[in-house]
Amino acid sequence: MFRLVNINGRAAFEYDGSWYDLAELSGDGMLADPLQAVVRHRELHALYGRGASAASGGLIADAVLGAPVPQPRQVFGIGLNYRDHAGESGVALPPAPLTFTKFPSCIAGPTAEIPLSGDMVDWEVEIVAVIGDEASHVAVDDAWGVVAGLTLGQDISDRAVQLTGVPPQFCLGKSFANYGPIGPALVSVDAFADPDDLSLWCDVAGERMQAARSSQLIFSIPTLVAYLSSICRLYPGDLIFTGTPSGVGMARNRYLAPGESIVSGADIIGELHNTCVAGTGPFAP
Amino acid sequence: MFRLVNINGRAAFEYDGSWYDLAELSGDGMLADPLQAVVRHRELHALYGRGASAASGGLIADAVLGAPVPQPRQVFGIGLNYRDHAGESGVALPPAPLTFTKFPSCIAGPTAEIPLSGDMVDWEVEIVAVIGDEASHVAVDDAWGVVAGLTLGQDISDRAVQLTGVPPQFCLGKSFANYGPIGPALVSVDAFADPDDLSLWCDVAGERMQAARSSQLIFSIPTLVAYLSSICRLYPGDLIFTGTPSGVGMARNRYLAPGESIVSGADIIGELHNTCVAGTGPFAP
Repeated sequence: MFRLVNINGRAAFEYDGSWYDLAELSGDGMLADPLQAVVRHRELHALYGRGASAASGGLIADAVLGAPVPQPRQVFGIGLNYRDHAGESGVALPPAPLTFTKFPSCIAGPTAEIPLSGDMVDWEVEIVAVIGDEASHVAVDDAWGVVAGLTLGQDISDRAVQLTGVPPQFCLGKSFANYGPIGPALVSVDAFADPDDLSLWCDVAGERMQAARSSQLIFSIPTLVAYLSSICRLYPGDLIFTGTPSGVGMARNRYLAPGESIVSGADIIGELHNTCVAGTGPFAP
Repeated sequence: MFRLVNINGRAAFEYDGSWYDLAELSGDGMLADPLQAVVRHRELHALYGRGASAASGGLIADAVLGAPVPQPRQVFGIGLNYRDHAGESGVALPPAPLTFTKFPSCIAGPTAEIPLSGDMVDWEVEIVAVIGDEASHVAVDDAWGVVAGLTLGQDISDRAVQLTGVPPQFCLGKSFANYGPIGPALVSVDAFADPDDLSLWCDVAGERMQAARSSQLIFSIPTLVAYLSSICRLYPGDLIFTGTPSGVGMARNRYLAPGESIVSGADIIGELHNTCVAGTGPFAP
């Protein structure tokens, strides 16, 4: 197993509360690049234990973490993948995974500030699968084998932008700067007793808004990998935001305001701590 | 000015019917990478004239060209950006650019075969703007300054996938393997008398299906750059598929069949020559 983090743009292990620069630990400078670390995820298992005998770079608690995959080539977002969230959204269950993108420029670290693009900006805590291998046409039974690990993400969404237009504008409404914080760590699949059943939750301004288990996903991570890879070639570092459970703001007419905190968490992976700040809306053409 | 092509994965100039390896011509190995060539697009103008005195790598006519930008970080697709195409699609004009992605894995060379994912696969010839500079919040008047050049693209679309689901599935329906052929060259903006007014056309199986001028765009390239960059940070090599004019198959209930040719063309840029072959549809979850 391994826990991969991003410290100052360099790949590092999180081990027992401290971090260890991966290039220094391995003596291989190529592994400084977070994306290269994902490409070579199979090597990381054997390297991970070395943290115990190496000099640490410092305490995780004192570090500012970046996104474990700061420059993914492809980001797949899945809509309405929890039955209760489809219900609160007032729409029918989808026959196949509803897929949009969060443009990669929105990916941010686990403590990034979120500049609000308007007054209808919403939270969506999600388990994020990180692809480890280049792959296409993967069978469901083989799908966990091409996943490097899991991380946690917020699929921050400007509902005013997202739901304007025919068809609605999921891609842009979910892609403002820092609307895709991920982290704190990329955790290998074998670190989970059952990678298909994680607890995840989201607190906004101290109030528990979302709480669910990923076993409630309509389309499981293996099914998503099989489906997406039947259409698109997948690459190491590609992210799948697997969908959010019920409890989003839109269903309660309660949106994010500057100064509010968003704390998102999941079993084993850890927590994202994001604070909302004032931002700017889109240019009106 | 310059005309940039991709020969065997390496950046090259197209000059007077021949090609010249950019790394050899410049003595700078970094410029072998097509994406690095776009990053350094400002240097290419001065280098371009050297083709006249250098040894060519061969005739363009004898080469198999790759996509001039084979691995874009972000691909923005714009829907319904010609008035007559919105009309034939039976939908209202959009208030802002309708934006989806073609996942980057679908980007292919100008003569790529198109494996058909079903019996409702359609053509869409489009002018493609290639971003040259990292940029956000670009003003309309400054927008051409961050564009490295223009190329031509086909936004191949499986209408059965695209129009299934609520919301419709533009991103996946337009992202099967090779559904985004681009080329043949990335041509610098200064090579066009008016980069906002190109003739573009598309022939399927020898029949002229689409013919228009890019001056008919509802949202011009500068407006698209201003709008997209107000939401997403743009990176060198990012592609904007600017939308297709009328004449697509869906409006005539006439779709692509294996063996059929698609020839797409635009002023100055040149032609794409793609042939349809049998393919496979998506995995049914």
